Amino acid sequence: MQVYINGQFIDQKKAAVSVADRGFVFGDGVYEVTRVVNGTFFMEQEHLSRLKEGLKGLKIEMSDSRIESIPVISRDLLELNGHMENEAMVYLQVTRGAAFPRTHQFPNPAVDATLYLSSSSFKPHTKLHEEGVDAITLPDVRWARCNLKTINLLPNTLAKQQAVEAGVNSAVMIRDGVITESPNANIFCAKGDTLYTFPASNYILNGITRRAVMQIADEYGIRVIQEPVRLDDLFEQDELFFSGTTTDIQPVTVIDGKPIGTGKPGPITRKIQEGYAKLLYGK
Amino acid sequence: MQVYINGQFIDQKKAAVSVADRGFVFGDGVYEVTRVVNGTFFMEQEHLSRLKEGLKGLKIEMSDSRIESIPVISRDLLELNGHMENEAMVYLQVTRGAAFPRTHQFPNPAVDATLYLSSSSFKPHTKLHEEGVDAITLPDVRWARCNLKTINLLPNTLAKQQAVEAGVNSAVMIRDGVITESPNANIFCAKGDTLYTFPASNYILNGITRRAVMQIADEYGIRVIQEPVRLDDLFEQDELFFSGTTTDIQPVTVIDGKPIGTGKPGPITRKIQEGYAKLLYGK
Repeated sequence: MQVYINGQFIDQKKAAVSVADRGFVFGDGVYEVTRVVNGTFFMEQEHLSRLKEGLKGLKIEMSDSRIESIPVISRDLLELNGHMENEAMVYLQVTRGAAFPRTHQFPNPAVDATLYLSSSSFKPHTKLHEEGVDAITLPDVRWARCNLKTINLLPNTLAKQQAVEAGVNSAVMIRDGVITESPNANIFCAKGDTLYTFPASNYILNGITRRAVMQIADEYGIRVIQEPVRLDDLFEQDELFFSGTTTDIQPVTVIDGKPIGTGKPGPITRKIQEGYAKLLYGK
Repeated sequence: MQVYINGQFIDQKKAAVSVADRGFVFGDGVYEVTRVVNGTFFMEQEHLSRLKEGLKGLKIEMSDSRIESIPVISRDLLELNGHMENEAMVYLQVTRGAAFPRTHQFPNPAVDATLYLSSSSFKPHTKLHEEGVDAITLPDVRWARCNLKTINLLPNTLAKQQAVEAGVNSAVMIRDGVITESPNANIFCAKGDTLYTFPASNYILNGITRRAVMQIADEYGIRVIQEPVRLDDLFEQDELFFSGTTTDIQPVTVIDGKPIGTGKPGPITRKIQEGYAKLLYGK
Protein backbone atom coordinates (compact mmCIF):
# COMPACT_ATOMS: atom_id res chain seq x y z
CA MET A 1 0.00 0.00 0.00
CA GLN A 2 1.27 3.47 -0.92
CA VAL A 3 0.83 6.61 1.14
CA TYR A 4 1.60 10.24 0.39
CA ILE A 5 3.97 12.22 2.56
CA ASN A 6 5.25 15.72 1.73
CA GLY A 7 5.39 15.46 -2.03
CA GLN A 8 6.17 11.78 -2.29
CA PHE A 9 4.20 8.58 -2.84
CA ILE A 10 5.92 5.81 -0.91
CA ASP A 11 5.24 2.35 0.50
CA GLN A 12 3.45 2.76 3.84
CA LYS A 13 6.05 0.61 5.59
CA LYS A 14 8.79 3.07 4.60
CA ALA A 15 6.82 6.28 5.09
CA ALA A 16 8.24 8.33 7.92
CA VAL A 17 8.26 11.78 9.50
CA SER A 18 10.96 13.54 11.46
CA VAL A 19 11.08 12.93 15.22
CA ALA A 20 10.92 16.73 15.39
CA ASP A 21 7.54 16.79 13.66
CA ARG A 22 5.18 18.69 15.93
CA GLY A 23 2.58 16.06 15.18
CA PHE A 24 4.83 13.53 16.92
CA VAL A 25 5.90 15.64 19.92
CA PHE A 26 2.78 17.79 20.52
CA GLY A 27 -0.08 16.27 18.52
CA ASP A 28 0.00 19.65 16.77
CA GLY A 29 -2.16 19.00 13.72
CA VAL A 30 -5.56 18.33 12.23
CA TYR A 31 -7.02 15.50 10.18
CA GLU A 32 -9.96 14.47 8.01
CA VAL A 33 -11.37 11.14 6.90
CA THR A 34 -13.37 11.11 3.66
CA ARG A 35 -15.45 8.34 2.11
CA VAL A 36 -15.10 7.40 -1.54
CA VAL A 37 -17.59 5.32 -3.53
CA ASN A 38 -16.38 4.09 -6.93
CA GLY A 39 -13.97 6.99 -7.17
CA THR A 40 -16.51 9.60 -6.15
CA PHE A 41 -15.71 11.53 -2.97
CA PHE A 42 -18.57 12.06 -0.55
CA MET A 43 -19.02 15.63 0.72
CA GLU A 44 -15.43 16.40 -0.24
CA GLN A 45 -15.86 20.18 -0.20
CA GLU A 46 -17.28 20.03 3.34
CA HIS A 47 -14.22 18.08 4.51
CA LEU A 48 -11.85 20.51 2.79
CA SER A 49 -13.67 23.48 4.31
CA ARG A 50 -13.42 21.97 7.76
CA LEU A 51 -9.73 21.26 7.18
CA LYS A 52 -9.22 24.93 6.37
CA GLU A 53 -11.14 25.95 9.50
CA GLY A 54 -8.95 23.64 11.58
CA LEU A 55 -5.74 25.02 10.10
CA LYS A 56 -7.00 28.52 10.85
CA GLY A 57 -8.01 27.49 14.38
CA LEU A 58 -4.50 26.19 15.07
CA LYS A 59 -2.83 28.93 12.96
CA ILE A 60 -1.06 26.34 10.82
CA GLU A 61 0.16 28.01 7.65
CA MET A 62 -0.43 26.14 4.42
CA SER A 63 -0.50 27.72 0.98
CA ASP A 64 -3.77 27.73 -0.99
CA SER A 65 -2.06 25.88 -3.82
CA ARG A 66 -1.00 23.13 -1.44
CA ILE A 67 -4.52 22.80 -0.04
CA GLU A 68 -5.89 22.81 -3.58
CA SER A 69 -3.55 19.95 -4.47
CA ILE A 70 -5.21 17.65 -1.91
CA PRO A 71 -8.05 16.42 -4.16
CA VAL A 72 -5.52 15.63 -6.91
CA ILE A 73 -3.19 13.80 -4.51
CA SER A 74 -6.16 11.91 -3.06
CA ARG A 75 -7.21 10.66 -6.49
CA ASP A 76 -3.64 9.74 -7.48
CA LEU A 77 -3.34 7.78 -4.24
CA LEU A 78 -6.60 5.92 -4.83
CA GLU A 79 -5.42 5.03 -8.34
CA LEU A 80 -2.05 3.82 -7.07
CA ASN A 81 -3.72 1.66 -4.44
CA GLY A 82 -6.47 0.32 -6.66
CA HIS A 83 -9.12 2.03 -4.55
CA MET A 84 -11.05 3.77 -7.34
CA GLU A 85 -13.45 0.86 -7.47
CA ASN A 86 -15.87 -0.15 -4.72
CA GLU A 87 -15.67 1.66 -1.41
CA ALA A 88 -12.64 3.34 0.07
CA MET A 89 -11.64 6.03 2.53
CA VAL A 90 -8.93 8.65 2.48
CA TYR A 91 -7.18 9.73 5.66
CA LEU A 92 -5.57 13.15 5.54
CA GLN A 93 -3.42 14.80 8.19
CA VAL A 94 -1.66 18.15 8.36
CA THR A 95 0.77 19.03 11.15
CA ARG A 96 2.65 22.26 11.84
CA GLY A 97 5.84 20.61 10.55
CA ALA A 98 9.21 19.63 11.96
CA ALA A 99 11.40 22.01 13.95
CA PHE A 100 14.38 21.73 16.28
CA PRO A 101 14.58 22.74 19.05
CA ARG A 102 11.24 21.59 20.50
CA THR A 103 9.45 24.66 21.89
CA HIS A 104 5.83 25.05 22.94
CA GLN A 105 5.53 28.25 20.94
CA PHE A 106 5.28 27.94 17.16
CA PRO A 107 8.51 27.81 15.12
CA ASN A 108 9.40 31.33 13.99
CA PRO A 109 9.79 31.66 11.06
CA ALA A 110 7.16 29.03 10.30
CA VAL A 111 8.32 25.74 8.81
CA ASP A 112 6.60 23.80 6.04
CA ALA A 113 3.53 21.98 7.27
CA THR A 114 3.61 18.19 7.02
CA LEU A 115 0.98 16.71 4.69
CA TYR A 116 0.19 13.00 4.99
CA LEU A 117 -2.49 11.01 3.17
CA SER A 118 -3.34 7.34 3.13
CA SER A 119 -6.14 5.39 1.51
CA SER A 120 -7.73 2.07 2.33
CA SER A 121 -10.56 -0.04 1.06
CA PHE A 122 -13.69 0.25 3.13
CA LYS A 123 -16.51 -2.08 4.04
CA PRO A 124 -19.59 -0.53 5.68
CA HIS A 125 -20.61 -2.17 8.96
CA THR A 126 -23.82 -3.41 7.43
CA LYS A 127 -24.60 -6.01 10.06
CA LEU A 128 -24.13 -3.52 12.88
CA HIS A 129 -26.29 -0.98 11.04
CA GLU A 130 -29.02 -3.60 10.79
CA GLU A 131 -28.87 -4.93 14.31
CA GLY A 132 -27.63 -2.01 16.39
CA VAL A 133 -24.74 -1.98 18.84
CA ASP A 134 -24.20 -1.60 22.55
CA ALA A 135 -22.23 1.06 24.39
CA ILE A 136 -21.24 2.21 27.85
CA THR A 137 -21.44 5.70 29.30
CA LEU A 138 -18.11 7.31 30.15
CA PRO A 139 -17.10 10.75 31.37
CA ASP A 140 -16.16 13.09 28.53
CA VAL A 141 -12.71 14.21 29.71
CA ARG A 142 -11.74 16.04 26.52
CA TRP A 143 -10.51 19.60 26.29
CA ALA A 144 -12.80 22.57 25.71
CA ARG A 145 -12.10 22.95 21.98
CA CYS A 146 -13.62 19.75 20.64
CA ASN A 147 -14.87 21.72 17.64
CA LEU A 148 -11.36 21.47 16.19
CA LYS A 149 -10.64 18.12 14.51
CA THR A 150 -7.14 17.80 15.93
CA ILE A 151 -4.89 14.80 16.39
CA ASN A 152 -4.85 15.36 20.19
CA LEU A 153 -6.99 12.24 20.39
CA LEU A 154 -5.88 10.51 23.57
CA PRO A 155 -9.20 10.94 25.39
CA ASN A 156 -10.97 9.50 22.37
CA THR A 157 -8.64 6.52 22.02
CA LEU A 158 -8.78 5.80 25.76
CA ALA A 159 -12.59 5.91 25.78
CA LYS A 160 -12.84 3.63 22.75
CA GLN A 161 -10.38 1.20 24.33
CA GLN A 162 -12.34 1.24 27.59
CA ALA A 163 -15.48 0.33 25.62
CA VAL A 164 -13.67 -2.51 23.85
CA GLU A 165 -12.36 -3.81 27.16
CA ALA A 166 -15.90 -3.66 28.55
CA GLY A 167 -16.96 -5.89 25.66
CA VAL A 168 -19.13 -3.29 23.92
CA ASN A 169 -18.88 -1.44 20.62
CA SER A 170 -18.39 2.12 21.77
CA ALA A 171 -19.07 4.76 24.39
CA VAL A 172 -21.56 7.55 25.03
CA MET A 173 -19.59 10.37 26.62
CA ILE A 174 -21.05 12.53 29.37
CA ARG A 175 -19.94 16.05 30.28
CA ASP A 176 -21.63 18.01 33.04
CA GLY A 177 -24.47 15.52 33.12
CA VAL A 178 -25.33 15.63 29.43
CA ILE A 179 -24.59 13.44 26.42
CA THR A 180 -21.97 14.91 24.09
CA GLU A 181 -20.43 12.44 21.62
CA SER A 182 -19.00 8.98 21.15
CA PRO A 183 -15.20 8.78 20.87
CA ASN A 184 -15.49 9.04 17.08
CA ALA A 185 -19.06 9.96 16.17
CA ASN A 186 -21.86 12.39 16.93
CA ILE A 187 -24.96 11.26 18.79
CA PHE A 188 -28.63 11.77 17.99
CA CYS A 189 -31.49 10.83 20.29
CA ALA A 190 -35.04 10.37 19.03
CA LYS A 191 -38.03 10.98 21.26
CA GLY A 192 -41.46 10.97 19.71
CA ASP A 193 -41.03 12.45 16.24
CA THR A 194 -38.11 14.69 17.17
CA LEU A 195 -34.32 14.28 17.05
CA TYR A 196 -32.12 15.85 19.72
CA THR A 197 -28.38 16.43 19.41
CA PHE A 198 -25.76 18.42 21.28
CA PRO A 199 -25.53 21.91 19.72
CA ALA A 200 -22.57 22.68 17.46
CA SER A 201 -20.24 24.37 19.93
CA ASN A 202 -16.77 24.02 21.43
CA TYR A 203 -17.82 20.80 23.19
CA ILE A 204 -18.41 18.66 20.11
CA LEU A 205 -16.94 18.12 16.69
CA ASN A 206 -19.51 19.28 14.18
CA GLY A 207 -19.43 16.15 12.03
CA ILE A 208 -19.94 16.25 8.28
CA THR A 209 -22.27 13.25 8.69
CA ARG A 210 -24.04 15.12 11.52
CA ARG A 211 -24.76 17.92 9.04
CA ALA A 212 -25.98 15.35 6.50
CA VAL A 213 -28.34 13.90 9.12
CA MET A 214 -29.83 17.33 9.75
CA GLN A 215 -30.31 17.86 6.03
CA ILE A 216 -31.99 14.44 5.65
CA ALA A 217 -34.20 15.04 8.69
CA ASP A 218 -35.28 18.33 7.17
CA GLU A 219 -36.17 16.62 3.88
CA TYR A 220 -38.20 13.96 5.71
CA GLY A 221 -39.93 16.52 7.92
CA ILE A 222 -38.28 15.20 11.09
CA ARG A 223 -37.68 18.02 13.53
CA VAL A 224 -34.11 18.35 14.92
CA ILE A 225 -33.54 20.27 18.13
CA GLN A 226 -29.95 21.14 18.95
CA GLU A 227 -30.19 20.67 22.67
CA PRO A 228 -28.18 18.37 24.90
CA VAL A 229 -29.91 15.27 26.28
CA ARG A 230 -29.37 14.74 29.99
CA LEU A 231 -27.90 11.46 31.18
CA ASP A 232 -30.85 11.30 33.56
CA ASP A 233 -33.16 11.24 30.54
CA LEU A 234 -31.10 8.77 28.49
CA PHE A 235 -33.40 5.79 29.09
CA GLU A 236 -36.47 7.87 28.34
CA GLN A 237 -35.30 8.16 24.72
CA ASP A 238 -37.04 6.08 22.08
CA GLU A 239 -33.96 5.71 19.88
CA LEU A 240 -30.31 6.68 19.78
CA PHE A 241 -27.81 6.56 16.95
CA PHE A 242 -24.23 7.52 16.16
CA SER A 243 -23.35 9.41 13.00
CA GLY A 244 -19.88 9.59 11.47
CA THR A 245 -17.84 9.23 8.32
CA THR A 246 -16.89 5.58 8.90
CA THR A 247 -19.71 4.90 11.38
CA ASP A 248 -22.46 5.94 8.95
CA ILE A 249 -25.80 5.89 10.79
CA GLN A 250 -25.30 3.39 13.57
CA PRO A 251 -28.25 2.47 15.84
CA VAL A 252 -27.29 2.09 19.50
CA THR A 253 -29.79 -0.19 21.16
CA VAL A 254 -28.25 -1.00 24.53
CA ILE A 255 -26.34 1.31 26.87
CA ASP A 256 -24.82 0.21 30.16
CA GLY A 257 -26.65 -3.09 29.67
CA LYS A 258 -30.09 -1.45 29.46
CA PRO A 259 -32.23 -1.10 26.33
CA ILE A 260 -32.88 2.22 24.60
CA GLY A 261 -36.58 2.26 23.65
CA THR A 262 -37.53 -1.19 22.42
CA GLY A 263 -33.91 -2.31 22.34
CA LYS A 264 -34.10 -2.51 18.54
CA PRO A 265 -33.29 0.08 15.85
CA GLY A 266 -36.32 2.37 15.62
CA PRO A 267 -38.26 3.96 12.76
CA ILE A 268 -36.59 7.38 12.82
CA THR A 269 -33.13 5.79 12.75
CA ARG A 270 -34.28 3.67 9.80
CA LYS A 271 -35.53 6.74 7.96
CA ILE A 272 -32.24 8.55 8.47
CA GLN A 273 -30.30 5.46 7.36
CA GLU A 274 -32.43 5.31 4.20
CA GLY A 275 -31.86 8.99 3.43
CA TYR A 276 -28.15 8.69 4.16
CA ALA A 277 -27.75 5.71 1.83
CA LYS A 278 -29.40 7.77 -0.91
CA LEU A 279 -26.99 10.64 -0.31
CA LEU A 280 -23.91 8.43 -0.10
CA TYR A 281 -24.68 5.97 -2.86
CA GLY A 282 -26.93 8.20 -4.96
CA LYS A 283 -29.76 5.70 -4.92
CA MET B 1 23.50 16.29 17.03
CA GLN B 2 22.61 12.64 17.61
CA VAL B 3 19.31 11.35 18.93
CA TYR B 4 18.20 7.90 19.99
CA ILE B 5 15.26 6.20 18.33
CA ASN B 6 14.26 2.56 18.88
CA GLY B 7 17.68 1.05 19.44
CA GLN B 8 19.66 3.37 17.20
CA PHE B 9 21.73 6.52 17.65
CA ILE B 10 21.32 8.65 14.55
CA ASP B 11 21.76 12.22 13.36
CA GLN B 12 18.71 14.19 14.40
CA LYS B 13 18.13 15.37 10.83
CA LYS B 14 17.74 11.75 9.72
CA ALA B 15 15.81 10.46 12.73
CA ALA B 16 12.29 9.45 11.80
CA VAL B 17 9.25 7.51 12.94
CA SER B 18 6.60 5.72 10.93
CA VAL B 19 3.59 7.76 9.79
CA ALA B 20 1.62 5.02 11.54
CA ASP B 21 3.22 5.83 14.89
CA ARG B 22 0.39 6.52 17.31
CA GLY B 23 2.39 9.46 18.59
CA PHE B 24 2.02 11.04 15.17
CA VAL B 25 -1.66 10.23 14.53
CA PHE B 26 -3.12 10.35 18.08
CA GLY B 27 -0.55 12.01 20.33
CA ASP B 28 -0.65 8.64 22.08
CA GLY B 29 2.40 8.86 24.33
CA VAL B 30 4.15 10.35 27.34
CA TYR B 31 7.35 12.32 27.80
CA GLU B 32 9.83 13.55 30.38
CA VAL B 33 12.46 16.28 30.41
CA THR B 34 15.37 15.85 32.81
CA ARG B 35 18.13 18.29 33.74
CA VAL B 36 21.77 17.26 33.79
CA VAL B 37 24.60 19.17 35.47
CA ASN B 38 28.11 18.05 34.58
CA GLY B 39 26.85 14.58 33.77
CA THR B 40 24.77 14.25 36.93
CA PHE B 41 21.04 13.77 36.41
CA PHE B 42 18.75 15.80 38.63
CA MET B 43 15.96 13.84 40.32
CA GLU B 44 16.32 11.12 37.71
CA GLN B 45 14.46 8.48 39.73
CA GLU B 46 11.50 10.79 40.17
CA HIS B 47 11.31 11.32 36.41
CA LEU B 48 11.57 7.58 35.73
CA SER B 49 8.87 6.86 38.32
CA ARG B 50 6.56 9.39 36.72
CA LEU B 51 7.29 7.91 33.31
CA LYS B 52 6.22 4.51 34.61
CA GLU B 53 3.05 6.02 36.10
CA GLY B 54 2.28 7.63 32.75
CA LEU B 55 2.81 4.39 30.84
CA LYS B 56 0.51 2.67 33.30
CA GLY B 57 -2.06 5.47 33.02
CA LEU B 58 -2.16 5.07 29.23
CA LYS B 59 -1.67 1.27 29.38
CA ILE B 60 1.38 1.46 27.15
CA GLU B 61 3.32 -1.78 27.47
CA MET B 62 7.08 -1.47 27.85
CA SER B 63 9.33 -4.13 29.32
CA ASP B 64 11.14 -3.42 32.58
CA SER B 65 14.46 -4.07 30.87
CA ARG B 66 13.68 -1.47 28.25
CA ILE B 67 12.71 1.10 30.89
CA GLU B 68 15.85 0.22 32.83
CA SER B 69 17.94 0.87 29.73
CA ILE B 70 16.85 4.53 29.65
CA PRO B 71 19.50 5.85 32.07
CA VAL B 72 22.20 4.05 30.07
CA ILE B 73 20.92 5.36 26.74
CA SER B 74 20.65 8.86 28.24
CA ARG B 75 24.29 8.82 29.31
CA ASP B 76 25.48 7.40 25.98
CA LEU B 77 23.57 10.14 24.20
CA LEU B 78 25.07 12.87 26.37
CA GLU B 79 28.57 11.46 25.68
CA LEU B 80 27.94 11.32 21.94
CA ASN B 81 26.71 14.91 21.91
CA GLY B 82 29.39 16.29 24.23
CA HIS B 83 26.78 17.17 26.85
CA MET B 84 28.46 15.56 29.86
CA GLU B 85 30.04 18.88 30.74
CA ASN B 86 28.20 21.99 31.85
CA GLU B 87 24.42 21.96 31.76
CA ALA B 88 22.23 19.86 29.54
CA MET B 89 18.76 18.41 29.33
CA VAL B 90 17.46 15.09 28.10
CA TYR B 91 14.10 14.82 26.37
CA LEU B 92 12.50 11.38 26.46
CA GLN B 93 9.31 10.23 24.75
CA VAL B 94 7.50 6.91 24.63
CA THR B 95 4.56 6.29 22.32
CA ARG B 96 2.35 3.24 21.92
CA GLY B 97 4.18 2.40 18.68
CA ALA B 98 3.29 2.14 15.01
CA ALA B 99 0.34 0.15 13.72
CA PHE B 100 -1.66 -0.06 10.51
CA PRO B 101 -4.58 0.28 10.21
CA ARG B 102 -5.20 3.39 12.32
CA THR B 103 -7.84 2.51 14.93
CA HIS B 104 -8.82 4.40 18.06
CA GLN B 105 -8.60 1.24 20.14
CA PHE B 106 -5.14 -0.04 20.98
CA PRO B 107 -3.39 -2.39 18.54
CA ASN B 108 -4.12 -5.98 19.52
CA PRO B 109 -1.72 -7.70 19.94
CA ALA B 110 0.30 -4.77 21.24
CA VAL B 111 3.14 -3.45 19.09
CA ASP B 112 6.57 -2.36 20.33
CA ALA B 113 6.46 1.03 21.99
CA THR B 114 8.49 3.77 20.31
CA LEU B 115 11.32 5.15 22.45
CA TYR B 116 12.86 8.48 21.48
CA LEU B 117 15.51 10.49 23.33
CA SER B 118 17.33 13.69 22.49
CA SER B 119 19.78 15.82 24.44
CA SER B 120 20.70 19.45 24.22
CA SER B 121 22.92 21.87 26.04
CA PHE B 122 21.06 24.05 28.49
CA LYS B 123 21.48 27.58 29.77
CA PRO B 124 19.40 28.59 32.78
CA HIS B 125 17.34 31.75 32.27
CA THR B 126 19.39 33.58 34.89
CA LYS B 127 18.37 37.08 33.90
CA LEU B 128 14.66 36.19 33.99
CA HIS B 129 15.13 34.48 37.35
CA GLU B 130 16.69 37.67 38.68
CA GLU B 131 14.24 40.15 37.24
CA GLY B 132 10.98 38.23 36.99
CA VAL B 133 8.74 37.88 33.96
CA ASP B 134 5.28 38.97 32.87
CA ALA B 135 2.32 36.79 31.93
CA ILE B 136 -1.29 36.93 30.85
CA THR B 137 -4.23 35.00 32.24
CA LEU B 138 -5.87 32.55 29.84
CA PRO B 139 -8.62 29.96 30.18
CA ASP B 140 -7.29 26.49 30.97
CA VAL B 141 -8.97 24.50 28.19
CA ARG B 142 -7.07 21.25 28.80
CA TRP B 143 -8.65 17.85 29.33
CA ALA B 144 -9.47 16.42 32.75
CA ARG B 145 -6.39 14.19 33.06
CA CYS B 146 -3.64 16.77 33.27
CA ASN B 147 -1.92 14.56 35.85
CA LEU B 148 -0.64 12.44 32.95
CA LYS B 149 2.41 13.93 31.22
CA THR B 150 1.21 13.11 27.72
CA ILE B 151 2.17 14.54 24.34
CA ASN B 152 -1.43 15.71 23.78
CA LEU B 153 -0.04 19.21 24.24
CA LEU B 154 -2.03 21.38 21.86
CA PRO B 155 -3.73 23.44 24.59
CA ASN B 156 -0.32 24.08 26.13
CA THR B 157 1.34 25.08 22.87
CA LEU B 158 -1.59 27.32 21.91
CA ALA B 159 -1.54 29.05 25.31
CA LYS B 160 2.23 29.62 25.15
CA GLN B 161 1.93 30.97 21.62
CA GLN B 162 -0.88 33.29 22.69
CA ALA B 163 1.38 34.64 25.45
CA VAL B 164 4.25 35.16 22.99
CA GLU B 165 1.91 36.96 20.59
CA ALA B 166 0.74 39.16 23.49
CA GLY B 167 4.38 40.11 24.04
CA VAL B 168 4.73 38.41 27.42
CA ASN B 169 6.72 35.45 28.68
CA SER B 170 3.99 33.00 29.57
CA ALA B 171 0.44 32.44 30.77
CA VAL B 172 -1.38 31.78 34.04
CA MET B 173 -4.19 29.39 33.21
CA ILE B 174 -7.59 29.64 34.87
CA ARG B 175 -10.11 26.80 35.23
CA ASP B 176 -13.41 27.33 36.99
CA GLY B 177 -12.22 30.64 38.39
CA VAL B 178 -8.99 29.36 39.97
CA ILE B 179 -5.32 29.36 38.96
CA THR B 180 -4.07 25.97 37.78
CA GLU B 181 -0.76 26.04 35.88
CA SER B 182 1.25 27.79 33.20
CA PRO B 183 1.46 26.00 29.84
CA ASN B 184 4.67 24.28 30.99
CA ALA B 185 5.15 24.90 34.72
CA ASN B 186 3.40 24.73 38.07
CA ILE B 187 2.41 27.89 39.91
CA PHE B 188 2.99 28.90 43.52
CA CYS B 189 1.51 32.00 45.15
CA ALA B 190 2.94 33.49 48.32
CA LYS B 191 0.79 35.41 50.76
CA GLY B 192 2.27 36.39 54.09
CA ASP B 193 4.58 33.56 55.05
CA THR B 194 2.60 30.84 53.26
CA LEU B 195 2.77 29.29 49.80
CA TYR B 196 -0.39 28.20 48.01
CA THR B 197 -0.50 25.85 45.04
CA PHE B 198 -3.18 23.88 43.22
CA PRO B 199 -3.51 20.43 44.85
CA ALA B 200 -1.99 17.44 43.06
CA SER B 201 -5.04 16.10 41.22
CA ASN B 202 -6.28 15.36 37.74
CA TYR B 203 -6.27 19.09 36.89
CA ILE B 204 -2.52 19.67 37.11
CA LEU B 205 0.70 17.88 36.30
CA ASN B 206 2.43 17.14 39.57
CA GLY B 207 5.81 18.56 38.57
CA ILE B 208 9.06 17.10 39.84
CA THR B 209 10.22 20.67 40.50
CA ARG B 210 6.90 21.33 42.28
CA ARG B 211 7.75 18.47 44.63
CA ALA B 212 11.25 19.90 45.12
CA VAL B 213 9.73 23.28 46.02
CA MET B 214 7.58 21.65 48.69
CA GLN B 215 10.59 19.85 50.11
CA ILE B 216 12.62 23.09 50.16
CA ALA B 217 9.76 25.02 51.73
CA ASP B 218 9.53 22.37 54.42
CA GLU B 219 13.26 22.67 55.15
CA TYR B 220 13.00 26.45 55.39
CA GLY B 221 9.88 26.31 57.56
CA ILE B 222 7.70 27.90 54.90
CA ARG B 223 4.18 26.50 55.08
CA VAL B 224 2.70 25.16 51.83
CA ILE B 225 -1.06 24.83 51.50
CA GLN B 226 -2.30 22.79 48.54
CA GLU B 227 -5.35 24.90 47.78
CA PRO B 228 -6.26 26.66 44.57
CA VAL B 229 -5.94 30.45 44.46
CA ARG B 230 -8.94 32.21 42.99
CA LEU B 231 -8.46 34.52 40.03
CA ASP B 232 -10.37 37.11 42.07
CA ASP B 233 -7.63 36.92 44.69
CA LEU B 234 -4.70 36.94 42.23
CA PHE B 235 -3.73 40.56 42.82
CA GLU B 236 -3.97 40.13 46.59
CA GLN B 237 -0.98 37.76 46.43
CA ASP B 238 2.41 39.04 47.59
CA GLU B 239 4.41 36.88 45.19
CA LEU B 240 3.92 34.36 42.42
CA PHE B 241 6.37 32.02 40.76
CA PHE B 242 6.49 29.24 38.19
CA SER B 243 8.33 25.99 38.89
CA GLY B 244 9.47 23.54 36.24
CA THR B 245 12.33 21.47 34.95
CA THR B 246 13.53 24.03 32.41
CA THR B 247 11.80 26.98 34.08
CA ASP B 248 13.52 26.46 37.45
CA ILE B 249 12.03 28.88 39.97
CA GLN B 250 10.78 31.78 37.88
CA PRO B 251 9.33 34.86 39.59
CA VAL B 252 6.28 36.29 37.82
CA THR B 253 5.99 39.96 38.68
CA VAL B 254 3.39 41.32 36.29
CA ILE B 255 0.16 39.65 35.13
CA ASP B 256 -2.25 41.19 32.64
CA GLY B 257 -0.18 44.36 32.93
CA LYS B 258 -0.67 44.67 36.71
CA PRO B 259 1.98 44.07 39.39
CA ILE B 260 1.91 41.09 41.74
CA GLY B 261 2.85 42.41 45.20
CA THR B 262 5.61 44.98 44.80
CA GLY B 263 6.10 44.04 41.14
CA LYS B 264 9.55 42.64 42.02
CA PRO B 265 10.62 39.12 42.99
CA GLY B 266 9.83 38.71 46.68
CA PRO B 267 11.62 37.18 49.66
CA ILE B 268 9.87 33.79 49.66
CA THR B 269 10.59 33.32 45.95
CA ARG B 270 14.24 34.22 46.64
CA LYS B 271 14.41 31.66 49.46
CA ILE B 272 13.00 28.93 47.25
CA GLN B 273 15.39 29.88 44.44
CA GLU B 274 18.28 29.64 46.88
CA GLY B 275 17.19 26.23 48.14
CA TYR B 276 16.57 25.00 44.62
CA ALA B 277 20.03 26.06 43.44
CA LYS B 278 21.50 24.09 46.36
CA LEU B 279 19.53 21.00 45.36
CA LEU B 280 20.29 21.31 41.66
CA TYR B 281 23.92 22.36 41.82
CA GLY B 282 24.76 20.83 45.20
CA LYS B 283 26.00 24.13 46.61
